[in-house]
Amino acid sequence: MTTFIKKLEQCWQQDNLVCVGLDSDYDQLPTAVKNLRSVEEAMFTFNRDIIDATHDLVCAYKPNAAFYEAQGDAGFRALIRTVSYIRETFAHIPVILDAKRADIGNTNLGYVQAAFDIIGVDAITVHPYLGKEALAPFLARKEKGIIVLAKTTNPGAGEFQDLPVGESQEPLYQAIARHVAKTWNTNGNCALVVGATYPEDLKKVRAIVGDMPS
Amino acid sequence: MTTFIKKLEQCWQQDNLVCVGLDSDYDQLPTAVKNLRSVEEAMFTFNRDIIDATHDLVCAYKPNAAFYEAQGDAGFRALIRTVSYIRETFAHIPVILDAKRADIGNTNLGYVQAAFDIIGVDAITVHPYLGKEALAPFLARKEKGIIVLAKTTNPGAGEFQDLPVGESQEPLYQAIARHVAKTWNTNGNCALVVGATYPEDLKKVRAIVGDMPS
Repeated sequence: MTTFIKKLEQCWQQDNLVCVGLDSDYDQLPTAVKNLRSVEEAMFTFNRDIIDATHDLVCAYKPNAAFYEAQGDAGFRALIRTVSYIRETFAHIPVILDAKRADIGNTNLGYVQAAFDIIGVDAITVHPYLGKEALAPFLARKEKGIIVLAKTTNPGAGEFQDLPVGESQEPLYQAIARHVAKTWNTNGNCALVVGATYPEDLKKVRAIVGDMPS
Repeated sequence: MTTFIKKLEQCWQQDNLVCVGLDSDYDQLPTAVKNLRSVEEAMFTFNRDIIDATHDLVCAYKPNAAFYEAQGDAGFRALIRTVSYIRETFAHIPVILDAKRADIGNTNLGYVQAAFDIIGVDAITVHPYLGKEALAPFLARKEKGIIVLAKTTNPGAGEFQDLPVGESQEPLYQAIARHVAKTWNTNGNCALVVGATYPEDLKKVRAIVGDMPS
């Protein structure tokens, strides 16, 4: 079984280290792309051209769900078509859905089905706040990547993520990284989001989690 | 301007205190509903019958996005039609999209557009983990309700939510409730999720936030 982690490692071995975002905001697309095309067709065409131009350089593609949902069901179809195109044309490149999902228990089955079975991505980003028990439907998908938010890139990330917690008074994001590495990752399918805007924090997480992708 | 909070309060004044979930799992719908209908039509019909049977008793409807996303773009259309039906037929009843969203900065504009402009709900549930700065596009919508997860209902909610934080060593969920009440709610449009499965915690949050809906 080819897993998300294996696909990622194989791309890394080719010295392809760049993850390309496919954050295609329909309102910002060039007029030449939108002209005479439906919303679905324009978004898909724009993405396909990016993929064709970059496929030999990347270790992953990462569409952000928000830009597609903003265009309703047409955006949803554009997202499905984009991921299908990558899978059919460049099957070795993993696709990460940056969706930052997390609900409780079986409700997550809906998000799991949407991401992995309908859209067909290899990995998804999730919020940690509801805990491991809530995220079980994601974590159970051994062949997929479950990428947990630890320290995010935004300027205000520290409001809660840097709060000192527990007896050790380590920042919350480090406690989360520790939990994910020690107790969530029984299927070896977890990774972490740690923003490169906080390089010192990235070092600390690396010391906690070893070689888990982050 | 009628806001989410005003609509909710007006329903409460009629002694309608029940929020009805519209968590319509297509696979679980009765055969009689699915028979000869498309996925979109079946999900919409099932919801419409629930709404017609309950509209004089409820203070809000709450569809959970996961069940609709699980059916791809057809589910997305069923969700839009369900919310449109409530708005056109029982306009006084607010609709909460239980979507548990949260991305960073302007990316949230996509989720804001999807929830409030395309689907057309009055309120949305959000994760607090990325902080107030990240959620600004949600919080700026004065007329909408921004319902922040504090203590969720699931058995494993405490993994991070109960971690003692800062000098006071109060649980994280209380720190979040305090931040939301004191610094996030400048537009008076915030509310909190506190699971009734933890009644003692609900009392503590009530003591912190006063009469903010939770």
